[in-house]
Amino acid sequence: MSVFCFSNNQIKPINEAGVPVTDLLVQRGYGIFDFLRVAKDKPLFIEDHLDRFFHSASIMRLSIPQTREQIKEIVQELIHKNKMPYSGMRLLIAGGDAPDGYTIEHPHLIIIQAPLAEPTAQLPETGISLATYNYARQIPEVKTTDYLMAIWLQPWMKEQGADDILYHHNGNVTECPRSNFFMVTKDNVLVTAAKNMLKGVTRKNILTICAQHQIPFEERDLNVSELATAKEAFITSSTKRIIPVHKIDGHLVKPDYHASFAKKIYDLLVEMEH
Amino acid sequence: MSVFCFSNNQIKPINEAGVPVTDLLVQRGYGIFDFLRVAKDKPLFIEDHLDRFFHSASIMRLSIPQTREQIKEIVQELIHKNKMPYSGMRLLIAGGDAPDGYTIEHPHLIIIQAPLAEPTAQLPETGISLATYNYARQIPEVKTTDYLMAIWLQPWMKEQGADDILYHHNGNVTECPRSNFFMVTKDNVLVTAAKNMLKGVTRKNILTICAQHQIPFEERDLNVSELATAKEAFITSSTKRIIPVHKIDGHLVKPDYHASFAKKIYDLLVEMEH
Repeated sequence: MSVFCFSNNQIKPINEAGVPVTDLLVQRGYGIFDFLRVAKDKPLFIEDHLDRFFHSASIMRLSIPQTREQIKEIVQELIHKNKMPYSGMRLLIAGGDAPDGYTIEHPHLIIIQAPLAEPTAQLPETGISLATYNYARQIPEVKTTDYLMAIWLQPWMKEQGADDILYHHNGNVTECPRSNFFMVTKDNVLVTAAKNMLKGVTRKNILTICAQHQIPFEERDLNVSELATAKEAFITSSTKRIIPVHKIDGHLVKPDYHASFAKKIYDLLVEMEH
Repeated sequence: MSVFCFSNNQIKPINEAGVPVTDLLVQRGYGIFDFLRVAKDKPLFIEDHLDRFFHSASIMRLSIPQTREQIKEIVQELIHKNKMPYSGMRLLIAGGDAPDGYTIEHPHLIIIQAPLAEPTAQLPETGISLATYNYARQIPEVKTTDYLMAIWLQPWMKEQGADDILYHHNGNVTECPRSNFFMVTKDNVLVTAAKNMLKGVTRKNILTICAQHQIPFEERDLNVSELATAKEAFITSSTKRIIPVHKIDGHLVKPDYHASFAKKIYDLLVEMEH
């Protein structure tokens, strides 16, 4: 059975969809996207994702040809046609054809749905290992399609024995390439970066949960030197909710699973999805 | 009449060519390219461009499926079929389909030919205006498809009354988004950046000309503060050869056209193309 996507203003089989070779996205890497999880055919937190999608587009001066309502209708139509109850939905704005190869004139919408494993019912017990790297994404508050460094650094990351990269910019911890980062201080405060990174929807939900459940948290600059003092650390994303971090630059971070902030927050995140 | 390109391992009409929406180039901005000028059906300095193309691919860990000879044959076939004696030829390697959306597995070659005005027979008399901006391209020695900042900065550039942007990184002048930069010091030495930028083929040809014609030149760090003392400045590219620069950040730079370094070098560049 064909998988359908939205491209060139129509729903069509994904193997018939292509971005023109003259598109600014292809020739100049100019595009933005957002990615949301679908569970039991429900697009989770779609309003938050659309808020961010339109915000990214606005900063990059990419006018979205469809309205918010039209995008939601296309998402529903794909969900209906594709019959992938657990999946990821990628909304993308390509820079479009530019007669001079440089000027934004015809941005266009692409939507792709692909199967995605449902996150585990409870927080995973195993944690991952992070390696820190000094790098700032270009225009970090925007979810651009620029993952040049993230992909280029994969072999380096593996050499460090790490599963993911934690960016810091001149010592200020910001984010992982596809997730936000949180740590718990020795004083039991949950800390995450306040600026110069992409504000994830799961990050936002976690901060809401903290406020509602009297969990102390701070959004602030986080120096890379503080990582060694972390009692607990985890990364968050729409795809995985929370993944515990058990090692940063070789330094062990291993809280008691059942008493962890991550475990408590994970269960509350699951509730939020209903 | 159709314009032909090379895509998906075949020569095909450009309006039938598309990059899959699942390609790493589309989803993650992962690709490299090179661009050469065709004059009277001759691909100019193709060996230099192929050297750089394979170098870019190697650094980005993109294996090129075609051999150097095969690429030259495809270029010749496009020249034969398209009948565009004056044109630009864009060679591009897309990251390709990645089952996990992240790992480079199937990079592929795209070649696009498009009409291009022949540069003027002599150096243009009118010059352009540059605005300096603190920015370093990611992996600057590689011709990646990443022009996110260059395109994003276009409105800012126009606000400055400038025609192009001159990047410096923390005070060290590097390059323009699509060209190299040269200035002449008060001691009549031609200076261009030595590192942290893309080494253009025209830049290389100019340095060869300088060596052959006893024109004093230096490849070295060039501080942004030196720009105010320039007796002459110009930018260089395969498309335009040389364009004089008459203003940098509002500061006038206007040499005697006939006595300029640019005029002399331009005439020698034209000779090199024969």
